[in-house]
Amino acid sequence: MKGKAFLLLVFFTIFTQTYTVPLEKTETGFAKNVIILIPDGMSTDGVTLTRWVYNDGKPLNMDEIASGLVRTHNSDTIIADSAPGGTALATGHKTQDKLIGVKPKKATLYGSDKNDEKDYYSPVASVLELAKSMGKSAGIIATSEIMHATPADFTAHATHRSNYNDITEQQVFQNLDVVFGGGEFFLKAENREDKEDMTAALKNNNYKVIKNKKELEQLKTGKVWGLFSSKDIPYDIDRTTEPSLADMTKKAIELLSKNENGFFLMVEGSKIDWAAHANSPAGLISEIKSFDDAVGVALNFAKNNKDTLVIISSDHGNGGITIGNQDTTGNYPEIPLESFVSTLRKVTSTEEALSKRIAEKPENTADLVQKYFGFTPSDEEIQNLKSKNKTSDIQKILSEMLNKRSHIGWTTGGHTGEEVVLYVYADDYKNILGGTVQNSDVARYMAKAMGGDLDKLSSELFVPSKDFGSYGITVSNDLSDKNNPKFILEKNNSKYIFFENRNYFETNNKKTSFNGVVVYNGEELFIPLNALELIN
Amino acid sequence: MKGKAFLLLVFFTIFTQTYTVPLEKTETGFAKNVIILIPDGMSTDGVTLTRWVYNDGKPLNMDEIASGLVRTHNSDTIIADSAPGGTALATGHKTQDKLIGVKPKKATLYGSDKNDEKDYYSPVASVLELAKSMGKSAGIIATSEIMHATPADFTAHATHRSNYNDITEQQVFQNLDVVFGGGEFFLKAENREDKEDMTAALKNNNYKVIKNKKELEQLKTGKVWGLFSSKDIPYDIDRTTEPSLADMTKKAIELLSKNENGFFLMVEGSKIDWAAHANSPAGLISEIKSFDDAVGVALNFAKNNKDTLVIISSDHGNGGITIGNQDTTGNYPEIPLESFVSTLRKVTSTEEALSKRIAEKPENTADLVQKYFGFTPSDEEIQNLKSKNKTSDIQKILSEMLNKRSHIGWTTGGHTGEEVVLYVYADDYKNILGGTVQNSDVARYMAKAMGGDLDKLSSELFVPSKDFGSYGITVSNDLSDKNNPKFILEKNNSKYIFFENRNYFETNNKKTSFNGVVVYNGEELFIPLNALELIN
Repeated sequence: MKGKAFLLLVFFTIFTQTYTVPLEKTETGFAKNVIILIPDGMSTDGVTLTRWVYNDGKPLNMDEIASGLVRTHNSDTIIADSAPGGTALATGHKTQDKLIGVKPKKATLYGSDKNDEKDYYSPVASVLELAKSMGKSAGIIATSEIMHATPADFTAHATHRSNYNDITEQQVFQNLDVVFGGGEFFLKAENREDKEDMTAALKNNNYKVIKNKKELEQLKTGKVWGLFSSKDIPYDIDRTTEPSLADMTKKAIELLSKNENGFFLMVEGSKIDWAAHANSPAGLISEIKSFDDAVGVALNFAKNNKDTLVIISSDHGNGGITIGNQDTTGNYPEIPLESFVSTLRKVTSTEEALSKRIAEKPENTADLVQKYFGFTPSDEEIQNLKSKNKTSDIQKILSEMLNKRSHIGWTTGGHTGEEVVLYVYADDYKNILGGTVQNSDVARYMAKAMGGDLDKLSSELFVPSKDFGSYGITVSNDLSDKNNPKFILEKNNSKYIFFENRNYFETNNKKTSFNGVVVYNGEELFIPLNALELIN
Repeated sequence: MKGKAFLLLVFFTIFTQTYTVPLEKTETGFAKNVIILIPDGMSTDGVTLTRWVYNDGKPLNMDEIASGLVRTHNSDTIIADSAPGGTALATGHKTQDKLIGVKPKKATLYGSDKNDEKDYYSPVASVLELAKSMGKSAGIIATSEIMHATPADFTAHATHRSNYNDITEQQVFQNLDVVFGGGEFFLKAENREDKEDMTAALKNNNYKVIKNKKELEQLKTGKVWGLFSSKDIPYDIDRTTEPSLADMTKKAIELLSKNENGFFLMVEGSKIDWAAHANSPAGLISEIKSFDDAVGVALNFAKNNKDTLVIISSDHGNGGITIGNQDTTGNYPEIPLESFVSTLRKVTSTEEALSKRIAEKPENTADLVQKYFGFTPSDEEIQNLKSKNKTSDIQKILSEMLNKRSHIGWTTGGHTGEEVVLYVYADDYKNILGGTVQNSDVARYMAKAMGGDLDKLSSELFVPSKDFGSYGITVSNDLSDKNNPKFILEKNNSKYIFFENRNYFETNNKKTSFNGVVVYNGEELFIPLNALELIN
């Protein structure tokens, strides 16, 4: 090309910059099965450290499929939290802090949808709901309680992540095929504001409800809820009888893959995030390793079942962990591997679990550190540990002891704003999502991979009560029991009673089930079109 | 698949994990032109912050082409430095700290080549040398002095990055087509141990030697060395008359692309790293933006010249910067965008440049901060700034003032060990390198893209003197002038005088040029096969 033409060209193209729509190259409907694995709060340095400590530098399972970056920000603020981050990954809509599967009120940042006042806090369909609408099986797995923000984002619609009553009930009535995680506590009538027994509800709906690893291993068919602890499952390194994330993933895939229409599975390494909040290196890397083992299970299935898409994306960074800290400013390129990993390789307990042991027997502090961390603490450290009563204070000192010995830096006890790594396995290169995409693009990519339409499904699953008139239906709310709102729909002088968070209505003492659940956000009621048509 | 068969399969495949060779899918020889842009020391949060501050969240040029991750570690330690990091990117060989384009002695970590004692510190060919050997044009651009580690890694072979005498001389005699950067100081006879005038040497070899932006703009043809400052070029935001990185990149592509065989170009955003070492947010984001502008120039050329490969990879992380710090631990998801960006958007000077102004007129401290940073400093900050005499101390306080106001965290003043982002543009998806690759894989990918062989070229460019006997050649070293070693090769009673770092020999007062330069690592002499054949 001659100089002048080239200069003109450069000038022209610089000022007509185009941005590739990241989904445009993807084929519609290439994946029968979709597995998304979410390492909650995982930043890159944690992965690097895990690889050095546990694999001596050899690749982790996830390494092979890194394909780009994911922008994690909310609709209105630039550091994400799990509720809005997971909502974007699940539904294709960026939203605000605390919100679970509903649109935001405030959507000010680039990459958010325009939102009308009529859409504030309205529910939007998740890819899991999309998969179910297409006749696929669906499952969720978490190491936190299963009602926690990320699994909730795929299975429920609520205006606050802490609203476990509604979230749990929606999950119970979502017609899920496989649910594995923690959180049995929140199923029990005595722990619920509405005093409803959710375990009984599951059994009434022909679910197996299991509690331990042996029952998990013996499962041959679904549908099943397996809650392996009262609230969150202990950190992997502290676990005794509970199944690993890989165990749960393997069994879920075994059960879900029996459906010839395919399946959708969400797997969360929930407590990577918890360890990062605590600036706990022992918790962090053992959770990342355990997560990566689950990735290995998913990838092996996908490589043997080519119509399977596997995605890994965190929802946000956390902690600002780095390999290297203030102590390494002057000599970083000379420090041998051993200086970073030798302490962590000997650790057999998280700081959290060890802090409980120390709090129980402070007189054994030195021996306990030696036994579970593999080194002799200094006299100053022993005194420091013994001086604390609260396990959280002891835990903090233990983490500092490991961080100092391993030259690990942290910037915060909160989340961070960077892009996280996108990992994608698809059999055909052209279907691999790459570039720097939005978290909301990940949901739209999964929907396209399955050949479904999230927007269409949202309009079908969540018809607002203000539109019921066009179906000849009137509605009145019965909020007399504020924990169990009922909604009386009337058509042609017949009454149909709907229940918040449930997938059926009653008429003349007869139950009729429908696809989807009733969502009430405190102001507006949403009922699936399918249900409205059933009362015709 | 039935349960039992599935379980067996999972068991089997978990324990026979295979790792995809990242280059296997790439077509050999798909790229006539290769441009690698290296944002030295760039970590992900710096990119995110740059995007929010300067682009209000809209994509940067580089965003579109993120495709994976690059492992940055050295052959023997896990936190990289530019010399070994750049050597791996340039030559396909991981090496040790300080080394420029030569093999290591110690190669203990996964991902390093096995190395024999005979190969310790032996030079290895770079992709730039490979491009030249294939008849392509070649250029390097940096904002540091051009002799700095990263550009040196592509153009020289030395056992220490600070050996500017040898590095400069090799660069001068490497037959490069375009050299843009800083470092005029190091060409001058009075600043060189060997007292040789490198500017004169360039002019003798018919180079244009230019010094300012106007001369740059007027250039129509190479070969050219443009050194726009004595040492490093000022930070982009502090620049007055010097060209931008995008200016230099645009002109380099214009000149290099005249060669119908294609070209290789290395562009370094050198001082991203310097700003990160100083934990300087103003320096960091303005350098990243300036780097991204250069990426825009390269991408626009590539999109209009489809046989062009564009790669971006940093050589290592630096500083552990995060969006979010100790102050945001409790409220990170609620903090509005403005709290992170409003201060930085008003900054019109780096901390470094402002520190010099304050050191000159400490009585004007408050006004200077107001003028260049756009806010009124507190009384305590003013006193603190005035109490310091050294500009480095003032600079540090200024950075802390910006970091605090912008909720930016840092973990270290040194490099960090995480994977950096790999960015690749190639016209055909199947040729895009993805996954988590080694820095050394990046060089081998570029070589494969050009259709060349780095190992073969290494054996041709660097024949060790111990092998000269097989060509009937004897050699004696003349080290009488230790700064200008000469090597007398004899064959059939004729003498041929070779000069360290140069690309010609003398015989009977006649100069004969060859491809490549003479490399002497203090123990062993290496001469190109091409030169040995010429003395036949």
